[in-house]
Parts: sequence; C-alpha cells; structure tokens
Amino acid sequence: MQASRETSVVEVPAGTGRAVRVAAGDRVRVIDPDGGQVGDVFAFTGAEHHSASHTRAATSRLFPAVGEHFVTQRRRPILTLVEDASPGYHDMLIAACDPERYAALGASEHRSCAENLREALADAGHDYTGPTPQPINVFMRIPVEQDGRLRWLEAATSPGDSITFEAVLDCVVAVSACPQDIVGINAGSLSPLLIEVTSS
Amino acid sequence: MQASRETSVVEVPAGTGRAVRVAAGDRVRVIDPDGGQVGDVFAFTGAEHHSASHTRAATSRLFPAVGEHFVTQRRRPILTLVEDASPGYHDMLIAACDPERYAALGASEHRSCAENLREALADAGHDYTGPTPQPINVFMRIPVEQDGRLRWLEAATSPGDSITFEAVLDCVVAVSACPQDIVGINAGSLSPLLIEVTSS
Repeated sequence: MQASRETSVVEVPAGTGRAVRVAAGDRVRVIDPDGGQVGDVFAFTGAEHHSASHTRAATSRLFPAVGEHFVTQRRRPILTLVEDASPGYHDMLIAACDPERYAALGASEHRSCAENLREALADAGHDYTGPTPQPINVFMRIPVEQDGRLRWLEAATSPGDSITFEAVLDCVVAVSACPQDIVGINAGSLSPLLIEVTSS
Repeated sequence: MQASRETSVVEVPAGTGRAVRVAAGDRVRVIDPDGGQVGDVFAFTGAEHHSASHTRAATSRLFPAVGEHFVTQRRRPILTLVEDASPGYHDMLIAACDPERYAALGASEHRSCAENLREALADAGHDYTGPTPQPINVFMRIPVEQDGRLRWLEAATSPGDSITFEAVLDCVVAVSACPQDIVGINAGSLSPLLIEVTSS
C-alpha cells in the first residue's frame, strides 16, 4: 500500500529566487514551464551545503548520473538525482552570476543568482553568511570540448521539462531562475521556474 | 637594462604544505624535483582567494592557458599562468583531500591538503577561517571523457618539471605536496615540491 504523499508547488518568478524546506525523503522537482530557462539550485543544511568539487570527486563525473548523490563540503550526501526529464544538459562548472559579473558585462544594476540566493534563504529563515556555493546549474548547457574549452549555449529545454532530486538530509533547497540576459544561456526571454515538492 | 631580480626557494617536504608571501609582479614557480607529485596551490589576499568556478567562467576553459588569469571569487585576477614546463596536465575540478576523504578511504589518521593549507597559512601569519577553496591541482591528471566521466591517473611529471605563476595582486601562495597515497594520483612514493619565488 502506498503512503499518502502531498505535493506543493512554489513559483519562482523570472529572474528571482525562492527556497523551500524539505525533509529527508522528500522529492524536489524543478520544472521549466516555458522552456529554455536555466536554474541555479543550492541545498543547505545549516552552514553545510552541496559542493560541486566534492560531488565530482565522489561521482567521478562532471555531473551526477541518475541515482547518484550530490555531497556537501563534508562529503555527506545531501541530494540524490532521481529523475531527469530534460535533454540532460546541466552544468556544475560555472560560478553563480553576481554583481561583479554584471558590472564586467556593463550592467551595474542587475539581478543575479548570488543575490537571489541570499534573498531566498533570508525569506525562508535560513541563516547563512558564507560564500555563495558553486551552483547546480540545471538546464545550463556548457559543453566541454576535447581541448578543455567550454562553450556557452542556450538552454535546450522544452516547456514542461524537469529534473528531480530527493533530499537525503533535511535541508533548504533554493532555486534561482537565472536572470542572465546578456550572455546567451537562457533561450528567448527570461521565464519562471516551478519548484514542486512531494513529501515522502 | 634588466632590473635585478632575487630568487628564493622554499622546500615543501613530502605530504606537507608551505606558504610564501609575494608582491604583485613576483613569479612563483612550483617545481616537482622528483617527478610524479601533485601539488595543491592556493592564492589568498585577505579573505579573497582564487576561485576555480569563477576562473572557468572568466577563461571559458577547464584550466587557464598560458597568459590567462586565475581570478578570485570577486572576479579579480590574482595569478597569471606564465609558463608550463610540464606535460600540461593540471586539474581544477577536484576538491582538496581532507580528513573526511581519508576517513571514507579507511585512513582516519592521515595528512591532507586541506589541513596542510591551514598549517601553511598559519605559519605564514595569514589569518583565514573560511572554507577550503577548490585548489589549483598542478600536475594532477584528471582527464574528462566525452560522456563527462573523470579518470584519475598518476601524475606524468618528470623530475624538474614546473609550472610558473605571476602574482597580479600582493598575495599569499600556499602549496601542499599532496599526501594522497591511497588513490593513485601521485606516481611512486610521495615526494617534495619546491616553491621558487623570483621578485619583480
């Protein structure tokens, strides 16, 4: 007999961030309702958070395969990648966009994933003052060429594509609908994302 | 007429770390005197430090080419790669080894690059309490396969191979002669590294 599960959906308006609190076993599905939109995803438990460089060491991959974990800077699994209903392009190489990034691009007043993260964590009541972790950039298409060069391509997601994580630890998951509209990683205009949480 | 330059050399004993203070324009050459030894390199100015993910965004490469900069988490150039007298394999994907890494490998009492960094900074009088930055793993051979898998291969350096950085900012450069002797990234037994500083 299947246990009763509850599902809730939080909209992340275009260019902004939101965070949800989840318990171990809950599933978090990040949906791109309009297609072509990159999301920066972060998972925190206290000051501990997912870490790209420790996750690569744990998985021996640039990005985990379905069934593999994202681990923290203390090498503890915090999220599992449980489903990828998208073309499968995700990035874990590139830093979150931030005010310095936009200043260098000539846009001194611009929203950023780094600031979206701060706002979303504050709104969720999660106290974190450390550096911005390197994000899990879902739907972001940064292919690595054989000589080590990186290309910056538009997100290839179609409307409704999604990626689903399961929480291994009780944690706060933040999602920024990336406001990058200068470098062409988002296809078309900036659009919202959805965070669908299904309790375990 | 060439200005007078002074050169000093610090030995980094096998499995340990050392740090040097350098001024903008100084050159730091990391030498592998015995060959086959990985070094974890870090550059700090105050709480600001080189950042792998911001450097990849700045260079659009997994590792800078000669003439390109390593930038900080504030996207300021801190080091320039000025010469590579080695087979050219370096890594900027993998986290520094740390006590948690060795505990998972069954070695609960083991030196680590993360602890070597703390000791080296403390010895150099550089106050830093933040997280361990993702290192510049010189001579570390982690090829990326087309499907995104990472391989862990032994360092291919011959005795005397080196890599040279130029400081863009006044900074502290720390080097750990990686004590990893469980996963086969160091060839043969652990060996020392040398830090050669040439003033500008």
